[in-house]
Parts: sequence; structure tokens; C-alpha cells
Amino acid sequence: MPEQPEMTIQGWGPARAAAGDTVPKAARRYLTRELGWTPRDTPPVPVAEIELAPSRLPDDVRTVLVGLLGEENVLTDRDARLRHAGGKSYLDLLRRRSGDASDAPDAVVLPGSTEETAALLTACSDRGIVVVPFGGGTSVVGGLAGMDPDDRPCVVVDLSRMAGLQAVDVPSSLATVGPGMRGPQLEEALGEQGLTLGHLPQSFEFATIGGYAATRSAGQQSTGIGRFDDLVAGLTLATPVGVLELGHAPASAAGPDLLGLAVGSEGTLGVITEVRLRVRPKPRTVHYEGWSFRSWAAGLAGLQRLARHDLLPDVVRLSDADETRANLLMATGAGARALRGALKARGRADGCLLVLGWEGLPTLVRARMKTAASVLREDGALRLGSKVGESWRAHRFDGPYLRDRLMDHGLLVETLETAASWTALPTVYDAVLRALRTSLTREGKRPLIMTHLSHGYPTGGSLYFTVLADRDDELPIQQWLTAKRAATDALMSAGGTLTHHHAVGADHRPWLEREVGPLGVEVLRVVKQRLDPNGILNPGVLLPE
Amino acid sequence: MPEQPEMTIQGWGPARAAAGDTVPKAARRYLTRELGWTPRDTPPVPVAEIELAPSRLPDDVRTVLVGLLGEENVLTDRDARLRHAGGKSYLDLLRRRSGDASDAPDAVVLPGSTEETAALLTACSDRGIVVVPFGGGTSVVGGLAGMDPDDRPCVVVDLSRMAGLQAVDVPSSLATVGPGMRGPQLEEALGEQGLTLGHLPQSFEFATIGGYAATRSAGQQSTGIGRFDDLVAGLTLATPVGVLELGHAPASAAGPDLLGLAVGSEGTLGVITEVRLRVRPKPRTVHYEGWSFRSWAAGLAGLQRLARHDLLPDVVRLSDADETRANLLMATGAGARALRGALKARGRADGCLLVLGWEGLPTLVRARMKTAASVLREDGALRLGSKVGESWRAHRFDGPYLRDRLMDHGLLVETLETAASWTALPTVYDAVLRALRTSLTREGKRPLIMTHLSHGYPTGGSLYFTVLADRDDELPIQQWLTAKRAATDALMSAGGTLTHHHAVGADHRPWLEREVGPLGVEVLRVVKQRLDPNGILNPGVLLPE
Repeated sequence: MPEQPEMTIQGWGPARAAAGDTVPKAARRYLTRELGWTPRDTPPVPVAEIELAPSRLPDDVRTVLVGLLGEENVLTDRDARLRHAGGKSYLDLLRRRSGDASDAPDAVVLPGSTEETAALLTACSDRGIVVVPFGGGTSVVGGLAGMDPDDRPCVVVDLSRMAGLQAVDVPSSLATVGPGMRGPQLEEALGEQGLTLGHLPQSFEFATIGGYAATRSAGQQSTGIGRFDDLVAGLTLATPVGVLELGHAPASAAGPDLLGLAVGSEGTLGVITEVRLRVRPKPRTVHYEGWSFRSWAAGLAGLQRLARHDLLPDVVRLSDADETRANLLMATGAGARALRGALKARGRADGCLLVLGWEGLPTLVRARMKTAASVLREDGALRLGSKVGESWRAHRFDGPYLRDRLMDHGLLVETLETAASWTALPTVYDAVLRALRTSLTREGKRPLIMTHLSHGYPTGGSLYFTVLADRDDELPIQQWLTAKRAATDALMSAGGTLTHHHAVGADHRPWLEREVGPLGVEVLRVVKQRLDPNGILNPGVLLPE
Repeated sequence: MPEQPEMTIQGWGPARAAAGDTVPKAARRYLTRELGWTPRDTPPVPVAEIELAPSRLPDDVRTVLVGLLGEENVLTDRDARLRHAGGKSYLDLLRRRSGDASDAPDAVVLPGSTEETAALLTACSDRGIVVVPFGGGTSVVGGLAGMDPDDRPCVVVDLSRMAGLQAVDVPSSLATVGPGMRGPQLEEALGEQGLTLGHLPQSFEFATIGGYAATRSAGQQSTGIGRFDDLVAGLTLATPVGVLELGHAPASAAGPDLLGLAVGSEGTLGVITEVRLRVRPKPRTVHYEGWSFRSWAAGLAGLQRLARHDLLPDVVRLSDADETRANLLMATGAGARALRGALKARGRADGCLLVLGWEGLPTLVRARMKTAASVLREDGALRLGSKVGESWRAHRFDGPYLRDRLMDHGLLVETLETAASWTALPTVYDAVLRALRTSLTREGKRPLIMTHLSHGYPTGGSLYFTVLADRDDELPIQQWLTAKRAATDALMSAGGTLTHHHAVGADHRPWLEREVGPLGVEVLRVVKQRLDPNGILNPGVLLPE
């Protein structure tokens, strides 16, 4: 298995490039004008200056854990604890960049099997030690930043020792995978057998299979191949009171869906120690292309018509006018210049860009593309060709890297997302924009909100908002919390779901009751009480206080 | 809304035809030879002679229910109680035909809304009255025949007053439907708007939307459009402790899937009072066709190859050699003779028939058919044309009617089903056949087992077994229970699921722990305890004793 690069502590990616590590000129110019931003240097404190309290892991617990896992798999050193503190949300990064690691665990343990995981959970449950499962550490909703109300010592369970492709059943298109395996390593291993999983969220380079399952992830191709929930045929969940084996491929009618309870449980019900995945043959054809719509409304109408006839491609990304304009103006190079010229010449300078991606067998891809194209043209869409599509594809994982550079220069940068029925989507869109604008506008400064529809379904779609604003250097956390609260209230009132693919975490938990009702929360509580009677599993996440 | 015909008490369908109501000659000849069957008259006892104990509904409870629902919606008459006794399994029919209605409820109540349902559940919970939800009464696994361990008085909640299409959101392809609505009425109402649900199980004429959701039904087109679980975007569940609104279209990552707990809960967690369904435009093209494979193994291999490339059509039915032969020999008319001749001429007299059905947009159906055909031909399949497909389609709901006639003449007739991965399917198939043959063979008599693969998935398929045998007139129930137990043990040991689409009911509950493990059962128990603290909801079903 290839080496899995380690994530940097205060940002995204394996390491920050020394040179050219700044905001591109075109972006700096555009954002200065749009936001009323004053570019300034706001670098993170040196890693060595991050404050870290001494580990509170009791000696007797340490002895027990060492007995179970071996000395080398129970870590309490500074580096290990810092690397397993929190996730990668804007709030996480603000804290880490300011030198705050108060959410760091007291120890990091690395079990090597389901049995070891179950044993350590029982040991921690008996001794009142909090356990937080850790895959890639890429949560953007505080999934790793929950606060235990009883402030007990906390152990992070790092799953990187359980990171292999354990078995492939080629005729059944099933693969058994360790939860700590990352996407690139899994794709490489599957690729040797002509197979792919095809789950490509923006966190692809670092996120893990177990994390995808624990958070109901959706990838950039989920419109075509399904959300991660659709790709999980079964899993093993180790809990403090025993091990659950859930899911029966290909399908079962044997009562309520317990697999669906474990998927999305965000580490609060147990630790996922094995995942059985539906894989598929590598696509023989891959075609990405760009289209332009005159307006956001026309684009939504076109996609809705594709959706109801099951004609949506594998990748669908419709940018609103603000995102389209920002992308075109901040992009550099001859390609971007040519595209800007072409759109202007055809009266589409203010239009909305659509990226579509088609994958699969050549005959079917051709038929789907042709039928979809005629529907899109009826809605006035203009085909821009494959360069736009390929350019998006080449940069599909770039977002989080750019965020670090923007944060270095005084910017607030964060994303949020939701989903709603086609009928409710325009209302949800308007409501979120209004809420964010109201919250983030102050004298001479206003936010830039770039939105795209990121996943399509027959019944609706997901909206993904990227928010940029001049950072409030005095109260940066409060600035974003206020805006996020306003946006979340607005999207839920308008008929959106609390989250389409980022999960609940610590950040969304105050709204869970609004999503599933008080009785729904009660059902989750009794399940948790049964599987985690001492409440040690990722407290402060998912379930409201 | 068109009239919904009432089901007969001792069999299937609205009423038994007086004339020609016998087993076709060709079938009689074939089955006599195959089974060692002695055709004889074994008619049901007259309905008037069915024994029914007096209603045990306490007067004070009756008064409360009448206060909630009105006099006309609280029934304790003989006819209402008999019509709501049990379902339509072979065991149910044996009991009803022999004059046994010991599983009849003490009363039938008909709420008209979610609020009325919630109120009656609370009232019954407070007073220790058992409640069994009733849709179409078509369960074939004892879903309506559970025994309350405390033998409390029992009220059936008939949902036929909540049987309307309440709302349609055309752009979002969503329809809100009352749980008591049957398929034909829903299809008619949707059809007026150019829409269809497309869920067509064999029980289509009588089963209800709420029942489909409660049992995780799969229809004959589920290979293409998805199981019923895939069609449910949301539902309302009334419980003794409150009402749950579950599901958020199009998708959500807000924690564990509570909707998936309600779907498949079989009336044990609450009464489904509203279902939000994903509908679709009526297909513009519908094409059914027959194919022939040299062998069952070749057929499975061909379908598996279609499946892994997402090329399976909307309907897939591969019959094994025994089912193919029986269907060909028992069928009458010129068409059947011609087909027999054609297959013989091409050396396929002992082959396996495959019926495929394609629906959708013409361009896509053509492309899918063409690509699939080339794959099937590589596996040696022979195209037989559309007559075979259309003939199957015309008779798709006939099975249960024929069963009544066979039961009139001394036959055991029952079906069972499972699902497994493509790799495990052949083993499961062999194991079930062996178990049934061993159990049902006795001097001079042997069973006929006809099998088809009824639903395909990328990861596997469902097997559907139809069993015919000379009935043991002394101990008919024991005869089937023994065979069914052997078959279920065998299929689970071989890697099959307990049930792919018939649900658990009373008949499968002893095996649920084997399916989901003891801890899985415990999780279901705590959820039930929270929502139904007095255990009044459909006891004796789903959860093991």
C-alpha cells in the first residue's frame, strides 16, 4: 500500500509550499473590490507555540490500553495529540492557527482489529474515558470537536492501522475495506483489478472509508453512482457492549434497517471497524463538459427536467451567476481568457456555468448525453465543450488548499450546504443568501457568496455555498457563528435539510431536533443508551444537549 | 376514486368464479405425474361455518373508541372481524378454509386521520388493547397473525378511510398518499397527471401503500425503479407516545436514518398514516421480451454481467429449468405450442427462460437493450421475441388465483424467497432445493419446486421459490412448517437473507436474531419500548419471543 501523507496541523494538505504560497493576483484584485477586504498578513502562530495541556490519561487506564494494544499503539506525545485535535472546519482552523488546542485528546490509540477495538471500548466505558473515532480528521462540522459535558479524559481512536483492502468479490462487485483506508489508496488497490469505488468528495485525498460511512458522505459523482450510504452494503460496528454485523447484500426485508442507523452515527454509537462496499468496473468512457445557462432559474429548470426522466449525468454542478463570475474573473491563463471572450460574444457574460460529467459504457454514455443535450437545449442552454469540464475536473480538490492561503491574509472562508426538493430549492437559495448577506455586511464590507447545485436527484438537489468575507480580527469565531446560525435557521425554515453531506457534528447539533422532531431525538437517545450506556462515544456531537 | 373490491375471506381475489373454477387439464396432468398427486376435492368449509369467538372488546374501550372515531367506524360484527383475520399465506388459508378464525380481532376500527390514529393508539395503550394495522390484508408471512403472549383483546386498525392521493408536487416528482390506498387506484390517480409509481408486486391488486412501506416490499419492476424503500421519500408514523415525521427529500446527512427504522417496522413501532412517494413520468416506451439460456448457471452468469455494468433492465425474471418446463407444459393455446416447438427445434427444450422488461425514454431503452443484448449473446442466450414477454406480463398477477384452485384439490402451494450475492446465489439455490425435497418427499410423492431469480442488483439477486406438493390431509400445517423451517435454515446457512421482500411477520421471527444478531434485536427492542411502552403494537410479529 502506498504511503498515506500526514495532514498539516493548522491547515489542509501534507505541507505548505514555501514559495508562491500566496493569493493569486487576479483573485486578490477581485476580492478586494467585492468584499471591501483589506489584504493583510494574518499567519498562524508557529506550531511550537500551540498551547497543549498535559495529558490527563490516568496511569491505570494507560496500563490497560497498553496491555490491549501494545506500547507503540498508545500515544500521548505532543505531536500525536495535536494531529488528532479537531477537524478542518474554518472554526477548527481559526483555533489551531491562534494557538488553541484545548480540544486535543489526552491520548491517541491505534487498534489493529475489530476485537481490539471492542476490547478498548469496553475498557474505556468501564473507566469513564471518552472515545472519539478518527479517520482522516477532515470533518468540517466539528465532528471531532465535541465537548464532553463531564469533561472526562479523552482518547482518540486512530483507525490508520485498519486501512487495507481485505477482500474483493468480483462477481458480486463487493469489496471489504478497513475503515482507516483513504480514497486514493483504495482506488489504487481496486484499480489493479479493473474496479473503482468512485466516491470523490472534496476531502478525497485525506478522508477515510470509515469516515464516509459515519457521516453519510456524498461525493462529486454521487448524482450518478449514489451517496456513500448507497455504496455501503454492510459494516461492522464495535460498541462498548458488543459487536454488530449489519447489512445483507444485495437487499433484505428483514425488518427495520439497522445498517442505516450505524451509517451517519458519527462515532456516537460505536466505531466502524470494517465496511463492505459496492464497487464497479472502471468506466470505459469519461466525458466532462461545460454548458452555459442564461440564468440560475433556467439552469434549475433544465436540471429538474433531466432529473425527472432519470437523465442526470454522474457529475452535475450548476454555478449561480456570482460563482460563475467569480470563477471566471479569478481564473488565470489563456483558457480562462478565451472562455470569458466566448461567453461575452454570445451574450452570456452574466450567465450560469454548468459542468456535467458522464462515465460508463461508451454506447450508454453517448445515448444519455444525446438525450440530455436535447432537453438542455430546450431550456436555452449553450454547450461550451469539454475544456471547461476538464478544467473543473483538474482542480476538483483545490478548494481547501486555497482556503489556507486566503486565511493567511485576513479572510473568512467557509462553506455550508443543504438539500431541498426542486420546488423548495429557489426559496432555500434566496433565504440563505439573504441571511448570510445580512449577517456579514458591515460598514464598507460585504460577503461574496458563491453557490452551486452540487448533486441532483429525481426529487431535488443539494446547494453548496462558499462564503468569503473580510475577517473580523477581534471576534472571528463569533462572526462566523452568527452568520452560520442565521443561514441554518433560514434554510430550515425554507424547507431545506440541516445537512446534505457534511453531517451534524458539534456545529449542527442544536438543530437536530428541528430536523427529526423531539421524539426522533428520543429514539436516537435510547439506541445510544443501549449501545453506549456510559455515554463515552463522541459526546458533544450529533445529539443535542 | 374508483371502488376498491373486497377480498374474499378464504382465498384471493374479490370473489371465486362459479364456472370453470378448476385446475386446467394440462396442469392437472403434469402435476399428477410430477408430484404423485391424487387430485381430490378439498373445498373450504362454508364461510357461515367458520367458528368465531365472541368479541372481547371491553365496553368502556368501545365507548372511548366510538367517542374518538364515531359509531360507524368501530365494528365488531362477524363479517368485519372475519375479513380482518390474518393474511393470505398458505397457512392463513389452511386455517380459514378449515373453519378456524381464532386469530380474528375483537373489533375493527377505521380512523380517518393521523390525529385520530394517534389518539386511538394512546387510548389502546393506556387500556392494554392490542392494535394490529391492516392495509390490504395480503401478508404471506403471518404479518397479521401474530399472537399476543398476554392474550389481550385485539383491535385491527383498518386504513381504508385514509386512502387518497393527497398532494402531488410534479416538479419534485413527489406524491403524498394515504396508507390505505391500493396500487390500482393510485396508478389511476397519478396517471391523470402523466405520472406513475410503478410498484407492481404480485399482490398489486389488493395491497396498500402503507403495507408496502411497513414490509419493505419489492415489486416486479424493482430491479429498474428500486424497492419500495427506495420509493419512500418520507412518512408519518403515529405511535402511542406521539407522531414521527420522517424523511427529508431528496436526501440528508443529518444523522442515522430514522425513516429506515419505520420502513419495515411491520406495525410494531406505530401505524403509518401518510407516505410521501417518489413518482415518475409514465414510460414512453415499454418493451417486454423473452430469452432462452442453455442452463441456470449460464443465465445467472449472463445476468451478473449485466448487473455489474448497470445494464439490468427494469424487469428481470430468470426461471430455472424446472420452472421453465412446468410453465411450458402447463400453458395452453397456440402460443405455448409454438414456443415449445421453437425451443425444441433449437435444442433448448431443457433451457431456462428469461423475461426482460424495459421501460422509459425510447432512445435510452433502445441503447440499453442493444448493449444488454450483446452481453447476453456472449453468454449464449437466444432471443425469443416479445410474445413471451407480453404473455408473462398479461398473467403477472395470476399466481394467487391459481393457488386457490389448487388448494381446492388437495395440493400444498406456497412460495418463499431470499436474496444473496451473485457469488452465494448458486449455493443458496442448491441448499433450498435440497432442504425442500428432503422434507416434502415421502413414499410415492415428491415436491415440484419452481424457482426464478426475480430481482437483480449489482451485488446479487433475489430467488423466488414456488413449491407444490400433494397435501398431507392429516397434518397440512405441520407438513409446511417442517419444510419451511428446513428451507429457511438452509438458505441462511448458505448466505441468503431471511427475506428479500415478504418481510418477517410471525413466520420468520424465530430467525431474526440469526439475521441481525442478538445485539441487533436488542436495539430494535429498545426502540419499540420507547415508542410502544405497553407492547400493544402487533405483538407476535417481527421481534423474537
